[in-house]
Amino acid sequence: MWAQRRITLDPRPRGFHLVTREVEAALPELREVQIGLAHLFILHTSASLTLNENASPDVRRDFESWFDAAVPEDAPYWTHTLEGPDDMPAHIKASLLGPSLSLPIRDGRLALGTWQGVYLCEHRDHGGARSLLATVWGQEA
Amino acid sequence: MWAQRRITLDPRPRGFHLVTREVEAALPELREVQIGLAHLFILHTSASLTLNENASPDVRRDFESWFDAAVPEDAPYWTHTLEGPDDMPAHIKASLLGPSLSLPIRDGRLALGTWQGVYLCEHRDHGGARSLLATVWGQEA
Amino acid sequence: MWAQRRITLDPRPRGFHLVTREVEAALPELREVQIGLAHLFILHTSASLTLNENASPDVRRDFESWFDAAVPEDAPYWTHTLEGPDDMPAHIKASLLGPSLSLPIRDGRLALGTWQGVYLCEHRDHGGARSLLATVWGQEA
Repeated sequence: MWAQRRITLDPRPRGFHLVTREVEAALPELREVQIGLAHLFILHTSASLTLNENASPDVRRDFESWFDAAVPEDAPYWTHTLEGPDDMPAHIKASLLGPSLSLPIRDGRLALGTWQGVYLCEHRDHGGARSLLATVWGQEA
Repeated sequence: MWAQRRITLDPRPRGFHLVTREVEAALPELREVQIGLAHLFILHTSASLTLNENASPDVRRDFESWFDAAVPEDAPYWTHTLEGPDDMPAHIKASLLGPSLSLPIRDGRLALGTWQGVYLCEHRDHGGARSLLATVWGQEA
Repeated sequence: MWAQRRITLDPRPRGFHLVTREVEAALPELREVQIGLAHLFILHTSASLTLNENASPDVRRDFESWFDAAVPEDAPYWTHTLEGPDDMPAHIKASLLGPSLSLPIRDGRLALGTWQGVYLCEHRDHGGARSLLATVWGQEA
């Protein structure tokens, strides 16, 4: 079976946000799959998706601190500055984390580890709503 | 349906290069797919693939600047130096960006966001031609 | 055809470890696939998977050096410090490299480049055994 859906995520502040439940709720087709995959793809180049610790808000705050230190807005070498100081770092961060997640499905559910959650990584100061294209495929139950 | 093809990309200088059209043109099978995925896989460990902004050449130049600053050729800790100063940084950059892209297909085309393009990331000074193994699968139209 | 298997990797010291053969040996289903994909997914948030040079142990040692320098344990901005100084850097490293690899299958084997090998990236000092969920699917021979 194959299903594909566009999911719109509400605007969020710059930072790392747990969206596992929101994404699962938007994909009722997961329940039909015994063994399969879900591919989550963000249709933007200044926001990204990753998988990480789903319990402590500290972890998500520290993600923002590390990425801001590693990709500084005031680096002397930026030439693409027309869209604001947060834009070019956002592009770099987006590629470091990547635009997609491929997640295994088992018995009608995302088969994640106990501590794994889906993060929406918003790298812009005012990124607005973000769109995902989700594709689910696999062997039916 | 399933298709798999080897795509050879001409040698390019060190840096980030937009190859979306070249890759699409090499995959006529995309047109047969209603809902599916395209997996692009680079068969090398010193070049990589990413998805980012497809309009401004500035962005691609700034990618090169950031990666060169973040993974310096003259770091004191490199021990794998036999293949030249650009080799070990190339391996690190390749893993930061990753060897593959999984892209959704919708109605016979890659379903990318408006500003998304496929980058070949050439991390060596003289990387030569680069080979991709592309796999396309999905539900036929 | 579809197959899904849990693979347990023995505890390894902090660092980068070549596990290609171990993973292939755990997936006899690869031999049944003519064209397909193998998805390797690590069920943890402080270890990761990547693909890189399979020959020189130097390369894997230099990976550890770069990641330790780029994500320092003593950075002043960490707030998630309860689980030890190696924990929060492990989360960042895990997301930089990613929790999964999607590898093409051709004629019953992983279709990797000559120099490509699968790395288990152990980012904790005492990470213990690590579990992968591997999914194999494709067109049968």
